[in-house]
Amino acid sequence: MTTATDPPVITLLTDYGLADEFVGVLHGVIARICPQARVIDLSHGVPPQDVPAGAAMLLHALPYLPVGVHVGVVDPTVGADRRAVALRLADGRTLVGPDNGLFWPAAQAGGGVVAAVEISASPWVLQPLAATFHGRDIFAPVGAQLAAGRPIEEAGTAFDPAELVTLELPSATIDGDTLIATVIGADHFGNVQLGAASADLDSLGASAGATFEVTLASGDAHSARHARAFADGAPGELLLFEDSSAQLALACYRGSAQARLGVRGGDSVRVRPAPAHG
Amino acid sequence: MTTATDPPVITLLTDYGLADEFVGVLHGVIARICPQARVIDLSHGVPPQDVPAGAAMLLHALPYLPVGVHVGVVDPTVGADRRAVALRLADGRTLVGPDNGLFWPAAQAGGGVVAAVEISASPWVLQPLAATFHGRDIFAPVGAQLAAGRPIEEAGTAFDPAELVTLELPSATIDGDTLIATVIGADHFGNVQLGAASADLDSLGASAGATFEVTLASGDAHSARHARAFADGAPGELLLFEDSSAQLALACYRGSAQARLGVRGGDSVRVRPAPAHG
Amino acid sequence: MTTATDPPVITLLTDYGLADEFVGVLHGVIARICPQARVIDLSHGVPPQDVPAGAAMLLHALPYLPVGVHVGVVDPTVGADRRAVALRLADGRTLVGPDNGLFWPAAQAGGGVVAAVEISASPWVLQPLAATFHGRDIFAPVGAQLAAGRPIEEAGTAFDPAELVTLELPSATIDGDTLIATVIGADHFGNVQLGAASADLDSLGASAGATFEVTLASGDAHSARHARAFADGAPGELLLFEDSSAQLALACYRGSAQARLGVRGGDSVRVRPAPAHG
Repeated sequence: MTTATDPPVITLLTDYGLADEFVGVLHGVIARICPQARVIDLSHGVPPQDVPAGAAMLLHALPYLPVGVHVGVVDPTVGADRRAVALRLADGRTLVGPDNGLFWPAAQAGGGVVAAVEISASPWVLQPLAATFHGRDIFAPVGAQLAAGRPIEEAGTAFDPAELVTLELPSATIDGDTLIATVIGADHFGNVQLGAASADLDSLGASAGATFEVTLASGDAHSARHARAFADGAPGELLLFEDSSAQLALACYRGSAQARLGVRGGDSVRVRPAPAHG
Repeated sequence: MTTATDPPVITLLTDYGLADEFVGVLHGVIARICPQARVIDLSHGVPPQDVPAGAAMLLHALPYLPVGVHVGVVDPTVGADRRAVALRLADGRTLVGPDNGLFWPAAQAGGGVVAAVEISASPWVLQPLAATFHGRDIFAPVGAQLAAGRPIEEAGTAFDPAELVTLELPSATIDGDTLIATVIGADHFGNVQLGAASADLDSLGASAGATFEVTLASGDAHSARHARAFADGAPGELLLFEDSSAQLALACYRGSAQARLGVRGGDSVRVRPAPAHG
Repeated sequence: MTTATDPPVITLLTDYGLADEFVGVLHGVIARICPQARVIDLSHGVPPQDVPAGAAMLLHALPYLPVGVHVGVVDPTVGADRRAVALRLADGRTLVGPDNGLFWPAAQAGGGVVAAVEISASPWVLQPLAATFHGRDIFAPVGAQLAAGRPIEEAGTAFDPAELVTLELPSATIDGDTLIATVIGADHFGNVQLGAASADLDSLGASAGATFEVTLASGDAHSARHARAFADGAPGELLLFEDSSAQLALACYRGSAQARLGVRGGDSVRVRPAPAHG
């Protein structure tokens, strides 16, 4: 339903939070360069400097976003010698931000990188360039110029996409009847995201609605029922479900699974069909 | 000052918070379907799964919003058998979200529901439909199609508005010279909102500027002066005032009334003119 | 790159936070009056009622924002007799909000105020006027009318800009080889902002990369190395750097300087070249 006359789209994903003026300044820089752009805040709540968390958010969100310029800034080594890049994907999307793996999973899902440009010395960089706010001085202005229709070749110096920093998101391993996964993090509702495809659960040979034993790194074991939706559980019941990104997750109906389990990103979790009692 | 050529307006009210990518994904879904829409984030800070709090926010905000499509998602029973609905009000507004009472007070204020459509199986639903993210897969796409001008009759299956789930917001009772009200919640400044119209105070027979005794469920009694604005108080003084929605509220000038009183949503509070000393 | 046909820009800076519907209501009020405006949320995370913090954010952000109408609401004395104002600056920007010093530093940087109008009784004020939400009832509607092209003279009653409330942001003093500065606050990453220009450090006679001694009000002394970017430090190392507003700041690479030092806004900090050991 989009047409050639639709405004260009720029999306923003950062770990800046919303307390400071940083995000508003990005919007201002963009509005000065490309006033016709539609700017979408994907999120500014990536945990500070957590590149894998940002990479997963971008990967899961991109299919729902219009094709456009996608600026991502989770950048613990800003000001050091990591590359600043603009990437054109096979599916037509453009990614702008630091080259630290943040874009790797999304780029693979988008058919790979067909053009990569180093933009640290782009002619479009704002001067004076601050060493600690490349979002303002490099990524927002370059993203806005690209959204305004300037060719990516003019953004800086082309380089071989094979040199990009790679990043693999955690995936599950299966050991007999046990799935071993890494905790990715928890969302606003306290749902705990696991680094496992929901389909991985099928290989454990349990049926829908079955009960599983979830064992934490501490050795504590919890019973969790496989459910489709939160309200399938009793209040307080621990549930194992397929989240909206087709990943495996733990929820607690009308409660917080994170608070209940006390897990954190990076923790290991083991899931297996609950042993029969008898 | 609006004209026929103004862009359509979609407003969003959810309990998603802003840490995750959920809100950005709603914006993306809308931008793909109705790129010309102006999207206003009413709030994403409804306390998680607190339907009455969301209903009150929508009720108080709608008069200040352009007539448009108002998507609301506070949805503790997502994926269970509650209806998903699009409602056309007598005043021309369109509400899209779960049928759990969230829209009831706003619909009454808007002159009632003139058309109700069940949209769980709308032709506009995104596939695959996730059991836990109907905001993305049902409410945002249906809202965007309606904003783009598609008729509400095509959104799904019409049903009798009399079948909608009702929800009454707390109101005060008067017992002699005492007003008994429920705490609704507290805002960002720590002002405590009561489920009472400001005008209810008049029936207690006290004059403007009078001092009241506020007794909490714990039995603790506090003195609160009736004031028009925060700065009418001394720093730290407890004030009883009419908030911007003409509801009764408690404030503490240059402090937090919530922190001072330790009250929470659902608590009962009694207010009466301060007894004369002598 | 902006043209005469670009939409007018309104920016919003408040201490409202994002949990409540207050910010969404501002957007709604604006959209009803000036549907064509592009509205940028500079930030709604000014610490509650902290006028100097808001003044500093506006001062630092304005150069990156398009020229437009800049609404600012940090307003501890809302409803009392402070002025409500619309100010036209020499650089063409328009500021709308309370007259309590919030706009003073930005106005000076913008070449001074060329027109000042008291707007408490503006014909554009929404009725009924709530005593505690002038953002909704005065500042947003007046800002939107100005963005829509109405002349500032029609907004209310002109007064002499010399009567505006002034506010000086903290600046550093130099005492021999010691810089004495006030802590402004900390950002989302825990970087501690000092009320000192980065260039002030030069006058202490230390070279780039030197180590400094940072002494807190408590008497605790910390060693901090002068660095250009966060990643120049070892994890956990305390760094002294020039922030993106050319102010002096303290950071802790992969950590929070605020948490490490335990400082708060208003604290005094002393910085001097680390004494030679020998």
